[in-house]
Amino acid sequence: MTDKAGRLVIIGGAEAKDHDPIILEEAANLVEERLLIITTATQEPKEAGEEYDRIFSKLGVPEVKALHINSRADAAYKDYVEQIEKADGVFFTGGNQLRITSLLGGSRVCDAIKRGYKNGKVIIGTSAGAAVMSRLMVVTGESDENAKQGALDLALGLGFLDNVIIDQHFSQRGRLGRLLTGLAHNPALLGVGIDENTAIIVTENTFEVIGSGTVTIVDCSQVKTTNISNLLPDEALTLTNVKLHILSKRYGFNLDRKKVILPQDQ
Amino acid sequence: MTDKAGRLVIIGGAEAKDHDPIILEEAANLVEERLLIITTATQEPKEAGEEYDRIFSKLGVPEVKALHINSRADAAYKDYVEQIEKADGVFFTGGNQLRITSLLGGSRVCDAIKRGYKNGKVIIGTSAGAAVMSRLMVVTGESDENAKQGALDLALGLGFLDNVIIDQHFSQRGRLGRLLTGLAHNPALLGVGIDENTAIIVTENTFEVIGSGTVTIVDCSQVKTTNISNLLPDEALTLTNVKLHILSKRYGFNLDRKKVILPQDQ
Repeated sequence: MTDKAGRLVIIGGAEAKDHDPIILEEAANLVEERLLIITTATQEPKEAGEEYDRIFSKLGVPEVKALHINSRADAAYKDYVEQIEKADGVFFTGGNQLRITSLLGGSRVCDAIKRGYKNGKVIIGTSAGAAVMSRLMVVTGESDENAKQGALDLALGLGFLDNVIIDQHFSQRGRLGRLLTGLAHNPALLGVGIDENTAIIVTENTFEVIGSGTVTIVDCSQVKTTNISNLLPDEALTLTNVKLHILSKRYGFNLDRKKVILPQDQ
Repeated sequence: MTDKAGRLVIIGGAEAKDHDPIILEEAANLVEERLLIITTATQEPKEAGEEYDRIFSKLGVPEVKALHINSRADAAYKDYVEQIEKADGVFFTGGNQLRITSLLGGSRVCDAIKRGYKNGKVIIGTSAGAAVMSRLMVVTGESDENAKQGALDLALGLGFLDNVIIDQHFSQRGRLGRLLTGLAHNPALLGVGIDENTAIIVTENTFEVIGSGTVTIVDCSQVKTTNISNLLPDEALTLTNVKLHILSKRYGFNLDRKKVILPQDQ
């Protein structure tokens, strides 16, 4: 047990699984021995559990097991808490992020996962499992739409990462509009839009991008003009002087200083 | 005949036609007497011509006529040139922008349209008819994809507007990625992404937004880091320190000074 916080691997969904699984490979390398697959987000927990068990085992994780937590009662179950305490990492599958937060939020299982993260364990999540990583998360919202009043619903996530809003399937589903809407309401937060088959690996206050797509950082701290407080439902947003960073693999970001980190060989 | 350049109405496609046609109504108001519908972009010129004839007539334009220019020979036809010289404005329908530029580019008809614009006439275009407005235009490109090498093809447009790249159906088709790719290659240009049922009305070096969506201005002049020159086909782009302005109706922009213009009552 160390005092150093662990790693987060936040995947934008649709990561390659059998052919060239660059992201899951890197995630697997971070897990020392035991990985638990948490299938709470999905309505097909058995299939999802088996699939990720197979892949992570193939990628060399010595001990993989699916944990099907499907109720608040499950999330208080002592045996599950103990299993989490013994694991070196957890993996949240995709599905519906509200299932994760509504079933796990504030539970003993969730506390155990958080304690583990604070003590150096790795937390991996894809799609819905990525959304829950931040304190404030996108519950639902419109894809391929402009920024407008009511473009998304926000709720509390599990909160491993402060001061950001994560969005996933970002370029593939045209989600800039809804992320901007979320940030117009919360300009102190940083927007982090992660593409499919792309991930960030967070170590303390910095992250590095891996995978084939981009990570879009949306920084609204310097916004000069906004009309958000005057809008009726569905009315389009104005937001000026937004700063954007598009990052591909090997580029990084310092979340506290809001600065891009270049690849080490540059 | 005046020495003052005319107006451009650049519509992001899918503008409302029968119910609450806010954009076409404003466009109609700018046409004094005679409007020609140029159907070159579409494979269904008759239908498109009839539809816009009906709508603009209903909106009060005294004389509307479709001009079906479907070949380079048509584009050199003296009678068409004369009709354009007598018109107060032209409207380019949607379809394929490369049909417009490949059939009209450098033609006598095109010269007549440009002369008209320089002398105060109005040029209206939607979708493909919007793309051709700038000197450099998007020919084809990927929607709902991240910024990456090869995300779009560029060619010369008709060139009514310098120093910008127009993209249309912008939020609805998730086109930030391809526009950023175009700008990474041409950072001196300003990206102008126009949503559906949204338009800009350009008067000299400024424009104002009308319609229900947003216009996304992408300014890469302050970009600090890019990897565009090192990328293989399909590899993801890095582009840091991009400035973004999201503008809704009544907001404007000065293209020379790259500054947002607030609504007059603010």
